[in-house]
Amino acid sequence: MTSLAEQPAAAAGGAVAGASGPDIARLVMWCQDRPGIVASVASFLHRNGANIVQSDQYSSDPTGGRFFLRVEFHLPAAAARLAALERAFATEVAAGLGAQFRLRDNAVRSRAALFVSRYDHCLLDLLWRERRGELPIQTVQVVSNHENLRTDVASFGVPYEYIPVTRDTKAEAERRELELLRGRVDLIVLARYMQVLSSDFLARCGVPIINIHHSFLPAFAGRRPYERAKERGVKLIGATAHYATEDLDEGPIIEQDAVRVSHRDSVAELTRRGADIERTVLSRAVTWHCQDRVLLDGGIAVVF
Amino acid sequence: MTSLAEQPAAAAGGAVAGASGPDIARLVMWCQDRPGIVASVASFLHRNGANIVQSDQYSSDPTGGRFFLRVEFHLPAAAARLAALERAFATEVAAGLGAQFRLRDNAVRSRAALFVSRYDHCLLDLLWRERRGELPIQTVQVVSNHENLRTDVASFGVPYEYIPVTRDTKAEAERRELELLRGRVDLIVLARYMQVLSSDFLARCGVPIINIHHSFLPAFAGRRPYERAKERGVKLIGATAHYATEDLDEGPIIEQDAVRVSHRDSVAELTRRGADIERTVLSRAVTWHCQDRVLLDGGIAVVF
Amino acid sequence: MTSLAEQPAAAAGGAVAGASGPDIARLVMWCQDRPGIVASVASFLHRNGANIVQSDQYSSDPTGGRFFLRVEFHLPAAAARLAALERAFATEVAAGLGAQFRLRDNAVRSRAALFVSRYDHCLLDLLWRERRGELPIQTVQVVSNHENLRTDVASFGVPYEYIPVTRDTKAEAERRELELLRGRVDLIVLARYMQVLSSDFLARCGVPIINIHHSFLPAFAGRRPYERAKERGVKLIGATAHYATEDLDEGPIIEQDAVRVSHRDSVAELTRRGADIERTVLSRAVTWHCQDRVLLDGGIAVVF
Amino acid sequence: MTSLAEQPAAAAGGAVAGASGPDIARLVMWCQDRPGIVASVASFLHRNGANIVQSDQYSSDPTGGRFFLRVEFHLPAAAARLAALERAFATEVAAGLGAQFRLRDNAVRSRAALFVSRYDHCLLDLLWRERRGELPIQTVQVVSNHENLRTDVASFGVPYEYIPVTRDTKAEAERRELELLRGRVDLIVLARYMQVLSSDFLARCGVPIINIHHSFLPAFAGRRPYERAKERGVKLIGATAHYATEDLDEGPIIEQDAVRVSHRDSVAELTRRGADIERTVLSRAVTWHCQDRVLLDGGIAVVF
Repeated sequence: MTSLAEQPAAAAGGAVAGASGPDIARLVMWCQDRPGIVASVASFLHRNGANIVQSDQYSSDPTGGRFFLRVEFHLPAAAARLAALERAFATEVAAGLGAQFRLRDNAVRSRAALFVSRYDHCLLDLLWRERRGELPIQTVQVVSNHENLRTDVASFGVPYEYIPVTRDTKAEAERRELELLRGRVDLIVLARYMQVLSSDFLARCGVPIINIHHSFLPAFAGRRPYERAKERGVKLIGATAHYATEDLDEGPIIEQDAVRVSHRDSVAELTRRGADIERTVLSRAVTWHCQDRVLLDGGIAVVF
Repeated sequence: MTSLAEQPAAAAGGAVAGASGPDIARLVMWCQDRPGIVASVASFLHRNGANIVQSDQYSSDPTGGRFFLRVEFHLPAAAARLAALERAFATEVAAGLGAQFRLRDNAVRSRAALFVSRYDHCLLDLLWRERRGELPIQTVQVVSNHENLRTDVASFGVPYEYIPVTRDTKAEAERRELELLRGRVDLIVLARYMQVLSSDFLARCGVPIINIHHSFLPAFAGRRPYERAKERGVKLIGATAHYATEDLDEGPIIEQDAVRVSHRDSVAELTRRGADIERTVLSRAVTWHCQDRVLLDGGIAVVF
Repeated sequence: MTSLAEQPAAAAGGAVAGASGPDIARLVMWCQDRPGIVASVASFLHRNGANIVQSDQYSSDPTGGRFFLRVEFHLPAAAARLAALERAFATEVAAGLGAQFRLRDNAVRSRAALFVSRYDHCLLDLLWRERRGELPIQTVQVVSNHENLRTDVASFGVPYEYIPVTRDTKAEAERRELELLRGRVDLIVLARYMQVLSSDFLARCGVPIINIHHSFLPAFAGRRPYERAKERGVKLIGATAHYATEDLDEGPIIEQDAVRVSHRDSVAELTRRGADIERTVLSRAVTWHCQDRVLLDGGIAVVF
Repeated sequence: MTSLAEQPAAAAGGAVAGASGPDIARLVMWCQDRPGIVASVASFLHRNGANIVQSDQYSSDPTGGRFFLRVEFHLPAAAARLAALERAFATEVAAGLGAQFRLRDNAVRSRAALFVSRYDHCLLDLLWRERRGELPIQTVQVVSNHENLRTDVASFGVPYEYIPVTRDTKAEAERRELELLRGRVDLIVLARYMQVLSSDFLARCGVPIINIHHSFLPAFAGRRPYERAKERGVKLIGATAHYATEDLDEGPIIEQDAVRVSHRDSVAELTRRGADIERTVLSRAVTWHCQDRVLLDGGIAVVF
């Protein structure tokens, strides 16, 4: 089975009402650090008529580390010329540096599937931001193991697939999910989806998966985290958005934030404040991912 | 051996340049919740000529919970009358409610010993705030297992005792510490003191101990926490001030805070930002403790 | 013309899914400060079988200031007994103190009208929080001088009235608004309503009006504030929720917050971040107002 | 009269215990934006043996805006080679682009004079951070119009000059200040210096001046700002660090931050919290300035 993203992202089409304007594209690239990388990339872009408008780079170590680059550039008729530019960059620059790279038109949105269970706060915030043009995604499918959010999702004009999951039906449910999404998505967002995805699913889906979960100081693994945070009298509660990996809740961290709470807050109030911080952190993480601002240095997410 | 605080706190004397003005005192009280507690306390204060200027209360559960109260009141000639008021309150109010309580003149500062190892940031911030009149403590002694901060402390006019600690001398060192502080302090602050105090010390010292330590999302127990936070790519680092108990780093949490960091921050920079947040959190925790704003509901610190 | 709120709030009915549970009511009271107020109130509640579960008080000055009190209490069969308790409190306590007060069942929600122009972020956040049971209001009417949000509002089941406003029709539009809302609301929320209400409207509507507007350091009065913030290179943008008064944008401040921005943020991005902080600040302010947590000390909003 | 900074900064010598390590230098450059700038700079550095380890750039507008660049690079034997590199860069790159630039060894600290009146919080925080090696400055002189901080400053080993200022002696005082500092400093920091510097002083001193002042939402110009913030019931207080210009308090903003306050905070407490935020904001601004992270785009401070 091939990746869910087998069809080109561009097929999803549609311009984002973003700040970037037309004819803006981006290059992200990573390789072993060595002198001359920036000169090589910048010269390539210059002689192809591209003007760099924003650039971020990071080296994990000045001597012998890994190098990461993200460049936004203005290129007249970018949409028509990007495929040729990609081929040229591969042979003229990337091959010599042993670099991996992605080259994308900023106007093309990522196609996303949103997985959700019962809680609506993360899901609705993503759909609402997409509709406002704040989020460079196009949600092509919502998948839920519950029925309760069907009407809400319908008002955004997005298909809703109810796929219940029990211990016995989990393998079959995951098979249906993969079938449903095959070739249609570039990204899966777990917007408070309370089922653990199998390592088989992770291996076969072929697209990045972003998850959101609560975070506390100190951390509480396991069940009923807000009850335990209450019992411990924590003064901060937070949320962490990360890529899903086989080590549950241990994938690279994209974004975190926290808010103050007090002994007066009931478990219900802690949960409510947690929901506010979860939706904020997840929408930032999804935005940055879809803008190719997140590059992986082993287990560290470099966020430009 | 009796508590370090065997002599009355008032003996340390000295007015705090605080916001409260003269003739302000405070009552803190805790007991099983039941109807009429506030009425009983308020009536007592009223008929004794005290005018309540601030009041906080908390019930862990409206039916059958624990009740906590903190009241600040204006009482003409408070200093002279507080001892009699305390005796009257014990018999007229507290006995009937099965309540424990403390009654203190706001003008009297807590006597503190500050324990420190090599890092100066928490220690100097506390001493500086005390000198400015921001912190209602009187530091009577600094204890360190290193010599390096002696000159800094001298400039604040505070005695500095060097008590080195090795595995073999630890028991003797703790004996010296208890001897040095006996009857002189109301509070011990571990201002980045890197030695674990024995349960024997905790049991014998007889005064509260406030500790500060780094906190991360997720948490990293053990050694080299900033290195591990770097390896994990965390986006927030924090600090927690808590009462020291036998479960190391597990005592009731008084205050927490966190700041944003990024992949660009080196371990040195993470440590520096950690120092900033540690000194801020510790000074808040010490202030609130010394204002009797922190009451314990089992393992939860109720902070008024 | 009488106040918009001429019918009793209780008529709007409906329990809030709040943290407070059943049989919880609240008393808010304000008067000249003097000794014995708390004792008087607490004794009254005690002898009427009410158990105080939360209490906040504030005195603008211990000697001769204004006194403010908010008490939540548990009272068996609160709904049935509150009217009689109110009459008793008026004669037995408030009259003697020269105090004003409100006594309300926590289960009764405030009836609100939301005014909006073109921007949806504040409006949708309030409606969504109301639907989740987070916000103790019942929105009975949306009023807009534009048509564009009609469909969104319909999905929440709330009536939407389009009342266009031009310079020539403003007086007539305000007359229609007052007519539409008469006797139906306890609160008007200006959720990014870009029309200035006349002082005549303010005088006649008879209910509090909460407004939200952007805030900057330094402040930029007048038009195009985000453009001007961009030109000035501000590093923080904020929002302020306040009661509307005749001095435009100068009413008592209920809540404020701010977020960091940088030179990289375009005017569009500043506006977007401003929208996020506006909706957060407004929903807090409305929640606190509807919980009777906001009392006025002249031009200062005391927020318990 | 020539600039205070007439002697080269390098004369102040001394390595900073920074994160950067040895042989790290930085280039900052600004010019009209046009295609190929990054390629030109990167190629120059590459052929001179420098390896870029961090790079930030900003264009005020992709078409026709101003371009700003800051690059940190590793260069073997940087200290010995920087002067030659500077000459080569001027002719080979900057001249053709019409660019202005600075090229500096990261190991060289800026020489600073700190001006202060009576409040110690900003001054002591800067001196303490310098001593810890957190701040890349070398304070060569403290100037004050009061005597009260002399002892504190002496403990850091920094000369303290008392220059009183009255309306009649102001011109003479400024003349003494300029004389005292001539050729000795790269930067003046107004660390709560309550005298307004004349435009003549600003014109003649020839080095940047960083100022800190309180900020509120809304803003309160003029005297007694904390009293007025109290009267207005603000919920946030902040601080702004900016370059001093002839328009008092209107120079380019380098950094801002804010903290929450409430109606309970007295004017004294507001002032205390204001002091905390002022020292934090000022130390960040000074650090960034001394790392050449702050470039001016007209009235906007671009902070890399």
